[in-house]
Amino acid sequence: MTTDPLTPTPAHKFTFGLWTVGWQGQDPFGSATRAALDPVETVERLAGLGAYGVTFHDDDLIPFTAGEATREQAVKRFRTALDTAGLKVPMATTNLFTHPVFKDGAFTANDRDVRRYALRKTIRNIDLAVELGASVYVAWGGREGAESGAAKDVRTALDRLKEAFDLLGEYVDTQGYDLRFAIEPKPNEPRGDILLPTIGHALAFIDELERPERVGLNPEVGHEQMAGLNFAHGIAQALWHGKLFHIDLNGQTGIKYDQDLRFGAGDLRQAFWLVDLLESADYDGPRHFDFKPPRTEDAAGVWASAAACMRNYLLLAERSRSFRSDPEVRAALAASRLPELALPTAEDGLAGLLSDRSAFDDFDVEAAARRGMAYEQLDQLALEHLLGAR
Amino acid sequence: MTTDPLTPTPAHKFTFGLWTVGWQGQDPFGSATRAALDPVETVERLAGLGAYGVTFHDDDLIPFTAGEATREQAVKRFRTALDTAGLKVPMATTNLFTHPVFKDGAFTANDRDVRRYALRKTIRNIDLAVELGASVYVAWGGREGAESGAAKDVRTALDRLKEAFDLLGEYVDTQGYDLRFAIEPKPNEPRGDILLPTIGHALAFIDELERPERVGLNPEVGHEQMAGLNFAHGIAQALWHGKLFHIDLNGQTGIKYDQDLRFGAGDLRQAFWLVDLLESADYDGPRHFDFKPPRTEDAAGVWASAAACMRNYLLLAERSRSFRSDPEVRAALAASRLPELALPTAEDGLAGLLSDRSAFDDFDVEAAARRGMAYEQLDQLALEHLLGAR
Amino acid sequence: MTTDPLTPTPAHKFTFGLWTVGWQGQDPFGSATRAALDPVETVERLAGLGAYGVTFHDDDLIPFTAGEATREQAVKRFRTALDTAGLKVPMATTNLFTHPVFKDGAFTANDRDVRRYALRKTIRNIDLAVELGASVYVAWGGREGAESGAAKDVRTALDRLKEAFDLLGEYVDTQGYDLRFAIEPKPNEPRGDILLPTIGHALAFIDELERPERVGLNPEVGHEQMAGLNFAHGIAQALWHGKLFHIDLNGQTGIKYDQDLRFGAGDLRQAFWLVDLLESADYDGPRHFDFKPPRTEDAAGVWASAAACMRNYLLLAERSRSFRSDPEVRAALAASRLPELALPTAEDGLAGLLSDRSAFDDFDVEAAARRGMAYEQLDQLALEHLLGAR
Amino acid sequence: MTTDPLTPTPAHKFTFGLWTVGWQGQDPFGSATRAALDPVETVERLAGLGAYGVTFHDDDLIPFTAGEATREQAVKRFRTALDTAGLKVPMATTNLFTHPVFKDGAFTANDRDVRRYALRKTIRNIDLAVELGASVYVAWGGREGAESGAAKDVRTALDRLKEAFDLLGEYVDTQGYDLRFAIEPKPNEPRGDILLPTIGHALAFIDELERPERVGLNPEVGHEQMAGLNFAHGIAQALWHGKLFHIDLNGQTGIKYDQDLRFGAGDLRQAFWLVDLLESADYDGPRHFDFKPPRTEDAAGVWASAAACMRNYLLLAERSRSFRSDPEVRAALAASRLPELALPTAEDGLAGLLSDRSAFDDFDVEAAARRGMAYEQLDQLALEHLLGAR
Repeated sequence: MTTDPLTPTPAHKFTFGLWTVGWQGQDPFGSATRAALDPVETVERLAGLGAYGVTFHDDDLIPFTAGEATREQAVKRFRTALDTAGLKVPMATTNLFTHPVFKDGAFTANDRDVRRYALRKTIRNIDLAVELGASVYVAWGGREGAESGAAKDVRTALDRLKEAFDLLGEYVDTQGYDLRFAIEPKPNEPRGDILLPTIGHALAFIDELERPERVGLNPEVGHEQMAGLNFAHGIAQALWHGKLFHIDLNGQTGIKYDQDLRFGAGDLRQAFWLVDLLESADYDGPRHFDFKPPRTEDAAGVWASAAACMRNYLLLAERSRSFRSDPEVRAALAASRLPELALPTAEDGLAGLLSDRSAFDDFDVEAAARRGMAYEQLDQLALEHLLGAR
Repeated sequence: MTTDPLTPTPAHKFTFGLWTVGWQGQDPFGSATRAALDPVETVERLAGLGAYGVTFHDDDLIPFTAGEATREQAVKRFRTALDTAGLKVPMATTNLFTHPVFKDGAFTANDRDVRRYALRKTIRNIDLAVELGASVYVAWGGREGAESGAAKDVRTALDRLKEAFDLLGEYVDTQGYDLRFAIEPKPNEPRGDILLPTIGHALAFIDELERPERVGLNPEVGHEQMAGLNFAHGIAQALWHGKLFHIDLNGQTGIKYDQDLRFGAGDLRQAFWLVDLLESADYDGPRHFDFKPPRTEDAAGVWASAAACMRNYLLLAERSRSFRSDPEVRAALAASRLPELALPTAEDGLAGLLSDRSAFDDFDVEAAARRGMAYEQLDQLALEHLLGAR
Repeated sequence: MTTDPLTPTPAHKFTFGLWTVGWQGQDPFGSATRAALDPVETVERLAGLGAYGVTFHDDDLIPFTAGEATREQAVKRFRTALDTAGLKVPMATTNLFTHPVFKDGAFTANDRDVRRYALRKTIRNIDLAVELGASVYVAWGGREGAESGAAKDVRTALDRLKEAFDLLGEYVDTQGYDLRFAIEPKPNEPRGDILLPTIGHALAFIDELERPERVGLNPEVGHEQMAGLNFAHGIAQALWHGKLFHIDLNGQTGIKYDQDLRFGAGDLRQAFWLVDLLESADYDGPRHFDFKPPRTEDAAGVWASAAACMRNYLLLAERSRSFRSDPEVRAALAASRLPELALPTAEDGLAGLLSDRSAFDDFDVEAAARRGMAYEQLDQLALEHLLGAR
Repeated sequence: MTTDPLTPTPAHKFTFGLWTVGWQGQDPFGSATRAALDPVETVERLAGLGAYGVTFHDDDLIPFTAGEATREQAVKRFRTALDTAGLKVPMATTNLFTHPVFKDGAFTANDRDVRRYALRKTIRNIDLAVELGASVYVAWGGREGAESGAAKDVRTALDRLKEAFDLLGEYVDTQGYDLRFAIEPKPNEPRGDILLPTIGHALAFIDELERPERVGLNPEVGHEQMAGLNFAHGIAQALWHGKLFHIDLNGQTGIKYDQDLRFGAGDLRQAFWLVDLLESADYDGPRHFDFKPPRTEDAAGVWASAAACMRNYLLLAERSRSFRSDPEVRAALAASRLPELALPTAEDGLAGLLSDRSAFDDFDVEAAARRGMAYEQLDQLALEHLLGAR
């Protein structure tokens, strides 16, 4: 058994969606550049690379138009491959965006019959997900949105979205499933504006549900960065609310179309802080890669990029350990008074605060203003650890 | 008494911050281009233009270094001017960002004494705000953030932020004040990344407070647009949560520095949908302009832009009324099945949905997929109403 | 003959790409929602709506894999339809992006044989374009770019791009064609970064070509707005260089994926200033719409959005005329000293400037600094004309 | 003498603006957090850190309102300090943005007297720059722009801008100065939109000047990234045109306000590719840091961040050397056919290309389309070299 910290093993809980390595390269301006991948081959390959598990949309595994017999056979082959390879299915999700019937959304489509169909399609795949051992069910509402102002009454649409999650929660309760939902926010693309555009909007929404404890988040690196937001900050807030149920790792180079680069490509410093956070936080779920090997690549490039996602995570984790264990870093954190942020502001309570003359009347504002925060020295230490230069 | 729908009157509840028309034009690359404005002149001018009220940061009214006597005199002059002009003070807020003591934040500064000072400065101005009749107290945490990854432990900082709002809530409760807090989110500037960067993040945060009912939002047009988010969508979600306590109206032309243009300048179509939403929603609070007359303007330009903020709101409200009352628009809304979105997806409950063969097994997906949504016709009607072309 | 300024006629020179109304709605997350459109139907419909002409990529008209016979027949049917409908083909272009062979670019693909194939495919369609009467040939290098840093040596790639345009220019010269090239810049999508990302980069590139006079620009509204740039400013600079050979009109709501909304949707104020500029400038080329009717729409929505593109242009042109002819606007322009900008700074030459004590030594800087620019009053007049409120 | 490749020496040609380490921390929402720095101290400190030179705006060195005597004394003290420390002044520039007289721009202000004053202020500082040994004169037109559409006729403004550079070129010619101009583009801030917003726009503009050979570029990392553009690509195009006369190095984290972080902070991967390009290209000018130590820092933080700018450049240069000399990288570049991009596409000329059946008629498109580009393997090698992991 390897102890090389840079060699992925199932203990690292790395997982991949079937649709990631399986992406054929069709984009808004081009057709497929790669052949379809058999899910069974994907399972074998990923196991060979050291992954822990695989995830899927219903339509990744079973063609949209498949009859019962085809469906059963596809599931059976997949399950056999999983068993043989020793791969888990910790998460599954529903494709509610590819077929034109979902062009106006699924749970918030203006057409009621489309909404009902979307719920039934989801429920059907929840059964399969549970059967295959999933404990998290992701909901990306990529088509729940609009391109124009009158097309969607947002408050009404949120009523419908709540109704959908309440019904799904009831279903899972009724069935006695050990399954939690994870909402995946995204600001835009494929819709002009998508409902629940960020981690924050989704967190707030969950609080209005009938079973908030059953619902958390599946944030994706690139989605928050498409709004120019700091992903590590967003994950920290999700953790603070106890709502990081799953995570999608990939890369994005700024505010533009959804790039889904391999993890490590894109904003490298934010990737470092993300790994630093995940490795220190109380999150033991999968490290799930939701990326697309660029359309320029053939099969060799696909598997190289999948392997690199894991390797980059492990490299960044190693850099984080080295950063956190460096005595100079600890001194720098103290110089920047991070330990002081952890102290309550008023352990003496409101009354204590109000009666403390040193807090206001006698406070030497100008002297306090002269203190430097020493953040540049601290950040430079972090950068040098990242570069492997310390 | 005027009945011209384009002439502002106090009934429209238009309010302005002292710091808006009073902005002297200092920016990151330039010094002031305009003289300081006396708050008393501001009150008189705004009343003359038809405003309902005025708002302030403590330091707008009373110099940071003022002693008690100066303070009392400033407040007295201001109150007299308000009474004379008949202007209200529906909102006030604290300046926790200008002085260098707040360079690392206020409620989440790493330095505990700065946090305590910030709370006391806030409490002091809450007393004044209540005395002057304010019912909303805004909290913009513009310096609560960081430029580098290790400088702020976000989860710990959120603990401190929660502690601050819990203490302030306790204070207001204890005093028996009829005052609610409104958090103003912003993604960045002046910090590289700010905590609670969007409407969504702030809504989620509020749910963790001891007195969530006392705390809502004060969203600002440009702040959400700096993250590329649809402001009208954000306001709709805030309303859905019952959390629109106040609103900051201005203009922004896309993702860049915070522009604070006059309302109507910037993204005109989003401004239209915002007014359309506010006028139809259950929001009867102030329409507060938080803008900065460009640095190129002299006093005449300042007052022209203030008047234009109100006129543009009224023009857009008129366009919205004309849009909503047009029979062709109603037909177009029906053609786009907006009324159907308002119907429950499963008034028959989960059991009904699960047993309905028409919902899934017998659903004609392809036929449903062929239905057009007719959004282009609807949006074109809206655009023509906006242009005054119908 | 109509004199309604809002009814499109061929005199307005409105043109559409076959691929615009013909877009079937396939996007990165969804399959087609509309059937293919026969180019002949497109021609008939557009003529019926008042358009002047139609444009095409080779593969829009003739399937990529078509043999000679199919090709000839397709061209013949198209030409007959054009003649019958009285529609022109003022522009054509090459599809160098859909087929996987172009996944790394065309004129700058690392593979030499792909570059040669791309040139031959272009030359072949140039012949057809000229045969159909086109005088402008657009080159959008959408796949000339990279997702990663070492994948493309940019200086070498620019050598190849120059070589390609020099060869194409030589071909057109040799053939004696009356045809000019128009480069269409775009910052990203479908590649992570595209060469010649903005109007400026393309203008600079042209100056290095062997036949710069034969090459100009085809800027697209949304492409510049994807970089947060002011489109009207970009067009003004292109006009200043004498390089506006063609233009692509559409709509975009900020920095995000390429939306290709109908003209008028998106940033309405920038659309106004664009029309104001085009109508006053020395540009008599086509007003070409390069948009995509949203994927939510059926055929009725497609044609409604096409008609709306033209109507919105005409509405904005009318608003511009009303703005420019308003005496108050003329006074406001004078108050903002626009006429003074048109005066030379130093009609007295360098010597005059250097010897003018009033220019520096005796210049009253503080007095000059106090002058207001009166831009807010001017901009408000523009906004009110746009809203049809004056 | 040190041979440590990570210790800065004058041979590395690192330079800093007086205004960088001297920035006092005033931002749009806050006042200064640091005392003013004496230029003499700056010179001594920078020399101590291993810098090669220092640069300045006129007003950095000599107060705006200074009389002749003060001016002479300031220059003399500065020159003495330079001589003592052995520091060079390779570049200087004019402050045409801080004083309110420039609120509408300088060379393109609507007011003719402001334009004349700006030219004279520039000429005066050119004399000083040359006297101090500068060979590059930077022109950042930060206030040449507008917030609203009618405020600036862009074509007329470009006429004025050209007039200004033609006059300045004439002056320098007349004086026989060995001085070249370097235009610094920026898309926005402090104006809503700035003229010559990107590297491309400035390159194109230069081609219209009377003395194009005298004018090149001074691109700044963050300015291009504020438009979402790839900075290394932009620099490559500037080099391709022979127009990289100077460069401003700093850091920026995406599309937002101008951050001016220390070099290495911000987009680390783009910084790596930039250094990789600069070190391999024919550029031997200064590596000029135009950054602002964050407002949170005291003097220790200021000098730590200045030292880190240089160290990060040297670290990245070392990583670049290791990348370029790795045999696996060379193999990967070949596998991605980079050497093939360097071959002419048609060394056989147009006739050869047209008569080559293998180029089109017999070209096996499908076979060519199947080739992978192997970019993921190549980019992963680059990433691992950057992380110091190979």
